[in-house]
Amino acid sequence: MDENARLVDSIKEMLEGGREERLADLLAETHAADVSVVLRELPLSDQVQVFRLLAPQQAGAVLSELDDPTLLELVRTLDEVEVSKILDQMPSDDVVEVVDELPPEQAEKILDLMEEEKSEEVQELLEYEEGTAGRLMSPDFIAVHEGATVAEAIEHIRKAASGDDPFYLYVVDDHDHLVGVVPLHRLLTVDPTTPVRAVRREDVESVTVDTDQEEVARRVQRYDLREVPVVDNRGRLLGTIGIDDVIDVMSEEATEDIQRLGGVGGDETVLDSPRVVFRKRLVWRLINLGTALLAASVIGVFEPAIQALATLAIFMPIVASMGGIGTTQTATVVIRGMALGDFTAGLLARVLTKEVWLALTTGAANGLILALIAYLWKGQALLSVILGAALLFNMVVAAVVGTLVPVALRTFRIDPAIASSVIITAFTDICGFFSFLGLATLLMSFLL
Amino acid sequence: MDENARLVDSIKEMLEGGREERLADLLAETHAADVSVVLRELPLSDQVQVFRLLAPQQAGAVLSELDDPTLLELVRTLDEVEVSKILDQMPSDDVVEVVDELPPEQAEKILDLMEEEKSEEVQELLEYEEGTAGRLMSPDFIAVHEGATVAEAIEHIRKAASGDDPFYLYVVDDHDHLVGVVPLHRLLTVDPTTPVRAVRREDVESVTVDTDQEEVARRVQRYDLREVPVVDNRGRLLGTIGIDDVIDVMSEEATEDIQRLGGVGGDETVLDSPRVVFRKRLVWRLINLGTALLAASVIGVFEPAIQALATLAIFMPIVASMGGIGTTQTATVVIRGMALGDFTAGLLARVLTKEVWLALTTGAANGLILALIAYLWKGQALLSVILGAALLFNMVVAAVVGTLVPVALRTFRIDPAIASSVIITAFTDICGFFSFLGLATLLMSFLL
Repeated sequence: MDENARLVDSIKEMLEGGREERLADLLAETHAADVSVVLRELPLSDQVQVFRLLAPQQAGAVLSELDDPTLLELVRTLDEVEVSKILDQMPSDDVVEVVDELPPEQAEKILDLMEEEKSEEVQELLEYEEGTAGRLMSPDFIAVHEGATVAEAIEHIRKAASGDDPFYLYVVDDHDHLVGVVPLHRLLTVDPTTPVRAVRREDVESVTVDTDQEEVARRVQRYDLREVPVVDNRGRLLGTIGIDDVIDVMSEEATEDIQRLGGVGGDETVLDSPRVVFRKRLVWRLINLGTALLAASVIGVFEPAIQALATLAIFMPIVASMGGIGTTQTATVVIRGMALGDFTAGLLARVLTKEVWLALTTGAANGLILALIAYLWKGQALLSVILGAALLFNMVVAAVVGTLVPVALRTFRIDPAIASSVIITAFTDICGFFSFLGLATLLMSFLL
Repeated sequence: MDENARLVDSIKEMLEGGREERLADLLAETHAADVSVVLRELPLSDQVQVFRLLAPQQAGAVLSELDDPTLLELVRTLDEVEVSKILDQMPSDDVVEVVDELPPEQAEKILDLMEEEKSEEVQELLEYEEGTAGRLMSPDFIAVHEGATVAEAIEHIRKAASGDDPFYLYVVDDHDHLVGVVPLHRLLTVDPTTPVRAVRREDVESVTVDTDQEEVARRVQRYDLREVPVVDNRGRLLGTIGIDDVIDVMSEEATEDIQRLGGVGGDETVLDSPRVVFRKRLVWRLINLGTALLAASVIGVFEPAIQALATLAIFMPIVASMGGIGTTQTATVVIRGMALGDFTAGLLARVLTKEVWLALTTGAANGLILALIAYLWKGQALLSVILGAALLFNMVVAAVVGTLVPVALRTFRIDPAIASSVIITAFTDICGFFSFLGLATLLMSFLL
């Protein structure tokens, strides 16, 4: 963070001092990822000025690293011919990431201005659905026919000019079907006349173009892959997904889970303009208003009890709140366990037992403490007992709801993470108010 | 998930039928990662039986993939000599992961039984603090002196028998200082007499042994690294961290953030026994009890007002609950933004403005709707206005608290994720009760 701030200061100083050449040198020495972070903190006019000082290749790398709101604003301000020339220098899969974010008309204009071959490659990638392996893959891979020798393969690698460092040689048959892979170090250590067929590994973990990107990430993590070949439905090799893209997917998916649990859209960044996120934020706030009104209507049923004994109003939110933390804890562990693939169907009974046991033990402890405090505060023994009992009961409900609601959502193929606090705490709020106020009403004659 | 279930069924069937040879064949064909997932769902005696059917190398891979509770139980049941022989076959960094989880005496016993060289290597790694690059690295890397030729480097690679596929050749000087890196494909495509010095890349992104693993992951993600060399404080190359380990770290860190936001320990898995997590769960539930009691004491101050007008008790939880969703949404986006490095210090004013704007707009919308519903329900105009105003006010407080509390925690080097709903919603609960009941009390003479 400090380094960022220092870089921002240096850039501002050089811009003010008109020392553009020195600034260009500084930028050339800085990693594109760092430039893209710093750029966001400058006013738009400075952004454009800095951006134009970058060499085309670095400019491309910066574009593909920029967050979406900054990218949009910057590209809108730049000349389209200028942008198309930068995109020409970039690997096709990175171009896809940039073009994806632009408004359709602008994207089309820029694609028209690009070199034909590159533009066609990009448009082919754009035809795969968002969130699939096809959309993510790069068509720049190195492959040879299974009949080739190691020497021929090495010659092929020499000629192939690729953006990223290649680490695998892919092996295909007559019909371009993926039939093996050779890590490059193997080519170094065998006789050049060896047929590639003899050194290939045949058990290649691959995905198809329509595999969901989340599934791609899960396989990479599970099988410790370093690169994922992508094939079509007939097994023909079409591209590869590098680990850096997989890491970005994993990070996006984690963001989505975290934000959904917190009742946010799933892809909001701190820099999104308030207008862009207004609707998404509002939806959850309205849903919460709905569930809160539902809980209030439960209280409304017991208005006469509260009228008779206002002390009830003091304690009822505690019962609801404790159910809230209980169910949030449970659902958080359950939902994360599902995302990681740890929580498989065969474990449901074990997990439910664990959560109910935790609810009973911590609920009993909390219920006792609360009852004691309530008794010391208000001196009403029966009320204190009711309070402790309602808390214990609500904790058990919380455990069951926190486990079963995500499982049920998953069964219906709905992302369990939307069982965010908003939804599940509605259950425990209602149940908390109902159990405490209900018990108190039943025993009201003894309370007054 | 279905494939898991099928595999579990096949294994159970073969065990019951006593077809151990066929089962061994099936296991040999199955990826260690899949075996480790399935193992957890079997009873312990079956786990041991299945485990003993694995070839030593696969057994090692399975051990290093197992979740902690299952690992512990399995190793406790197996013979120590047996375990040490399996560990001898594993890469040192994987052995570290296993030994790390065992009780100290058992770990020591097993290390004593292992081959001396391997055991010493493992013990050296274990001396680095948990959560650092040193603890994570593998000492099996390929390095040559900068004076070597490409032919000599290739000869060196031929001789080095490494567990994982190497993708980089590291270059060191007379004192083992890291002075460059060569991706293997470069060695394939240059003349063998070329000095390594001529093809090396000098700008190598490296970390020191005491770099925090979270920082390692951040750099990998930011600079798209495929492997990270680890050096000591003098720049001497000691090991490398593979991307698969970095991915595991990223996943752990995401789990920690998600769980802390949900008021859970940070490293709980669905399989942890309830006894193990009891204390951690209880702590947050007790903290929540404390904050709930604090909020209740605010209500207590206004008990006379509620006594006079029980309707207040119906509406007060709505104001608190709306503050809760508001501050949770804000804090979620802010905390995730910090974890991703998107939310840098220079952006505070912009983010705060965005959140307050969202609070004012959505707060006004929600406040109007709530006031209208309250009026239709209870027919008290002034009460409805007070309710809407308190809601709007509480939403603004929620925006400020949700932004500033995580920022403040971060400033004091406390993980902002512990500003979980439990802590920040305490503010909005208290403020919600206070503003609504306070306003109502002030204007009570007009309400009755």
